[in-house]
Amino acid sequence: MELIDRIRSARGAGEADLVITNCFLLDVLSGRVHPGTVAVSGGWIVGLDGGYKAARTMDLGGRYLAPGLIDAHVHLESSMVTVPQFASAVVPRGTTTVITDCHEIANVMGIDGINYMLDCAAEAPLDVFVMLPSCVPATPLETSGAVLEAADLEPLLGEPRVIGLGELMNYPGTIAGAPEVLAKLKLFGGRPIDGHAPGLTGNDLSAYIAAGPDSDHECTTAAEAEEKLQKGMYVFMREGTGARNLLDLLPVANADNSRRCCLCTDDSHPTDLLGRGHIDSLLRMAVGAGVSPLRAVQMATLNTATRFGLSSRGALAVGYRADMVVFDDLESFGVSTVFKDGRVVTTDGALTEAPGEQRSVASSFNVAGFGANRLRLRATGKRARSIVVEPGQIVTGTSLTPVAVQDGFAEADPQEDLMKIAVVERHGGTGNVAVAFVRGFKLRAGALASSVAHDSHNVVVVGCTDADMTAAVERIVAMGGGQVVVVGGEVKAELALPIAGLMSPLTVEEVARGVETLNRAAGDLGCALDDPFMTMSFLALPVIPELKLTDKGLVDVGRFEIVGPFTD
Amino acid sequence: MELIDRIRSARGAGEADLVITNCFLLDVLSGRVHPGTVAVSGGWIVGLDGGYKAARTMDLGGRYLAPGLIDAHVHLESSMVTVPQFASAVVPRGTTTVITDCHEIANVMGIDGINYMLDCAAEAPLDVFVMLPSCVPATPLETSGAVLEAADLEPLLGEPRVIGLGELMNYPGTIAGAPEVLAKLKLFGGRPIDGHAPGLTGNDLSAYIAAGPDSDHECTTAAEAEEKLQKGMYVFMREGTGARNLLDLLPVANADNSRRCCLCTDDSHPTDLLGRGHIDSLLRMAVGAGVSPLRAVQMATLNTATRFGLSSRGALAVGYRADMVVFDDLESFGVSTVFKDGRVVTTDGALTEAPGEQRSVASSFNVAGFGANRLRLRATGKRARSIVVEPGQIVTGTSLTPVAVQDGFAEADPQEDLMKIAVVERHGGTGNVAVAFVRGFKLRAGALASSVAHDSHNVVVVGCTDADMTAAVERIVAMGGGQVVVVGGEVKAELALPIAGLMSPLTVEEVARGVETLNRAAGDLGCALDDPFMTMSFLALPVIPELKLTDKGLVDVGRFEIVGPFTD
Repeated sequence: MELIDRIRSARGAGEADLVITNCFLLDVLSGRVHPGTVAVSGGWIVGLDGGYKAARTMDLGGRYLAPGLIDAHVHLESSMVTVPQFASAVVPRGTTTVITDCHEIANVMGIDGINYMLDCAAEAPLDVFVMLPSCVPATPLETSGAVLEAADLEPLLGEPRVIGLGELMNYPGTIAGAPEVLAKLKLFGGRPIDGHAPGLTGNDLSAYIAAGPDSDHECTTAAEAEEKLQKGMYVFMREGTGARNLLDLLPVANADNSRRCCLCTDDSHPTDLLGRGHIDSLLRMAVGAGVSPLRAVQMATLNTATRFGLSSRGALAVGYRADMVVFDDLESFGVSTVFKDGRVVTTDGALTEAPGEQRSVASSFNVAGFGANRLRLRATGKRARSIVVEPGQIVTGTSLTPVAVQDGFAEADPQEDLMKIAVVERHGGTGNVAVAFVRGFKLRAGALASSVAHDSHNVVVVGCTDADMTAAVERIVAMGGGQVVVVGGEVKAELALPIAGLMSPLTVEEVARGVETLNRAAGDLGCALDDPFMTMSFLALPVIPELKLTDKGLVDVGRFEIVGPFTD
Repeated sequence: MELIDRIRSARGAGEADLVITNCFLLDVLSGRVHPGTVAVSGGWIVGLDGGYKAARTMDLGGRYLAPGLIDAHVHLESSMVTVPQFASAVVPRGTTTVITDCHEIANVMGIDGINYMLDCAAEAPLDVFVMLPSCVPATPLETSGAVLEAADLEPLLGEPRVIGLGELMNYPGTIAGAPEVLAKLKLFGGRPIDGHAPGLTGNDLSAYIAAGPDSDHECTTAAEAEEKLQKGMYVFMREGTGARNLLDLLPVANADNSRRCCLCTDDSHPTDLLGRGHIDSLLRMAVGAGVSPLRAVQMATLNTATRFGLSSRGALAVGYRADMVVFDDLESFGVSTVFKDGRVVTTDGALTEAPGEQRSVASSFNVAGFGANRLRLRATGKRARSIVVEPGQIVTGTSLTPVAVQDGFAEADPQEDLMKIAVVERHGGTGNVAVAFVRGFKLRAGALASSVAHDSHNVVVVGCTDADMTAAVERIVAMGGGQVVVVGGEVKAELALPIAGLMSPLTVEEVARGVETLNRAAGDLGCALDDPFMTMSFLALPVIPELKLTDKGLVDVGRFEIVGPFTD
């Protein structure tokens, strides 16, 4: 819409596209909830007064009209579906904009992966803004599918959807002034730079902020959030599938600082998206915890738009995009209608039209020299350093466990809850395979494997026998990525994730059913974990204490170095 | 300071330049006032914890430390002094950043005037950011010293101090979609665009906002401010010399919208700067009116920095410029120390060092064909359309007044409080001189003249005789600009304003004394106005109702056209 047409429309010349009446506006700018009228033309809000003629009038029957919700920080890949399918799930919940850090697909496919997300984003009925991943690979202790330096990211700065640098997980390198980190910080100077500094405090936190990051979504306590707010960070309060911090952090937000608080999900699995919802569920929690509806909505709209410089989003005002959501009330936040760019895009909780082309990508799988013999582990010590999984935690423990040895090779021992775990490199054909032991799965038989394994997303497999583990990995490779349960050489459940080994082309509902089937099949094998595939996805992440396995070997996270699988 | 050095300093490696202790921080980010420590290096705040070693430690004795104050909208030229002298006056009051619209000097000198201000700004101990003037000339009904189109402004966009487009006074043209206005709006798309829309409401206001301006400093009532906030504007609450709106507008600011409210002065005359102060005086008023000190300070710091995208200003936090002010208390807001870029720049209420080079400009005066005969006004009707001045108002009235006629020419009549007024074009040697009548000055004899006359700043003269008026104008021309009181052909008081006819190279104190001397001399002639030169400065401004005089003639502002000086 040309500027002149917008002005004319606002002046009331000719017909507006749409006038919305009989509603209460969540007016995040003037800080009030009040009755109002909204006139829309060409995708923009052009007026808030009466007296506009329009091609269409909608009477909201006294419901509440709010700006479309914004997720301040999400890794879309964690939903295990593509951008259009993600949009199908979240837009009917009122989300019209997300800020995504395509850290996962970039670790698999590099710039091609980022471009894939940008291409998908262009078509979805959801504004997807991209923070370029800052840490590919996440650590030098693993093999990722790409290495992205500042010079690799620079050509993407001109993309209109690219708005900043994604969560800078390498805070030790930042504080130490590592040149490759500084090069990225300088490249993104003046743009939003998201932080990731769990537990960082005192002068180390100041050094990290001085370097550039001015947001953090890793706070777990009010004191941590308070310190980060004071020192200059926006605090993104997170409530996702893996990490649920909202209720602990909400008490920090007050009348004079809540503008610096935003809501985010970080990672949401398909079952959660369908069950709990998206940012709408955070609104319910916040209001349930005593935050005023207006302030909660500000945290999900205006505050985030302001932090990211999205100046025409996040409010119901003239000159803003007509991205709007109709809530039945300000307690349940049940959504009856969603407008994107002034058009009604949902009906009965679903999108009214297809959310854009389903794009595929060529498989990037490149596994070399894998076979059952690669899973054998020669017993070089009396006790195995075993990763100990705790239900519901991504932090692991360590146990030193005597293992059964046969022909010089250490064996899994289901009766002692001792499984083998392996990570198989899948990007560069290095042939890397690392093997160790893990406790806590309590499988009686069989194996589970997945190509979703933060952050490098190599294939992780846990099982009772080398044969089933081998079959599981081979099935993953054959699918070009996915998750599988195998027992006795037979596939009991599987979900193909052919898009970078991370995402399915199916709908969220189908993927959620697939995940449930996998979990049930794992349960049938005795698995003690509610969501063993989510647990597995963090077992190869060498930045979370205390013992993890990458394709390069067992990582003592505290010492940040590779250790042997056995000790005396 | 290199990024790596800032990080090291924040980490506590080596010595910081300065550590400030024993104070309460006005922590505008976390929304609290709390005891704190601030470490500064290289002009930046690097830490807020204890434990920093520093070359210098300052104990504030329990005083309050706030971010340096920011004036959201000011025409520096109105202070009648140069940028360094302005800095001398306002920095000791705690102001460390101003957003200036060099509308006045640009109307005299065009791009050269803007560049002059930019050059001065580079040296002052005050961050001067520039909004490029959008309306040069202000109207087609007057002759200004320059005409600035979008193409003229474009080369200045690369200047680091240039951050947006200044107040768009031409709201009728904006709403009507005038091409030359749209060209400027498009050029500045995505940058801050300041509005100026006194009394604009309803769909016209929406049309104006839809065009781009998203701030307004012209609100005079709470209802007006409320509507502008709702529709998407930042409201700059103004308290200056000419317009005093703060107390009327403060009731609009609440916990959930005050972030969209900023403080500004617009125009401050030297006497006010010395007497009342600058933004500090607005803080006193706001807190006196019941606003919390923290929220008042937010309106004078963080809010304004956020609106203008000045992301490293407006808060006491890591990575922010160390621009800070020490207040004795949160009621008087008495300033004991000001830090600019981490250095103490004031002592005992004055700058500690010279505020930068005093730059002069070549005179732009170009008056042609002026002489006493040009002030003669042939009586073409029975009654004169006289401008009626009301004390303390910039709005004027009209009276239709019978005039004395001699030899066919209309004469002033001091006994009837009927003076002659003339505007003499001074930029282009056009020879334009317009003459009419004015009431309200009550001069018994003599004439007053000034080269400060919004917005084109031609020479305005009011007097009882053509001879004294001529002498006054000739003295202004001889000084290359200024203000003068003449009686019996003799100069009784004068103040030279050789910089564009608007500013003096003297100090604020000297200029304030000069203004007082002028006013006293005018008073000696019987003048009934407290500040006749300020009154005169608005008599040539054809956008303020209802009758004004430009070099092109008498303007009926309501009809926005030139009318004759007589009627039947």
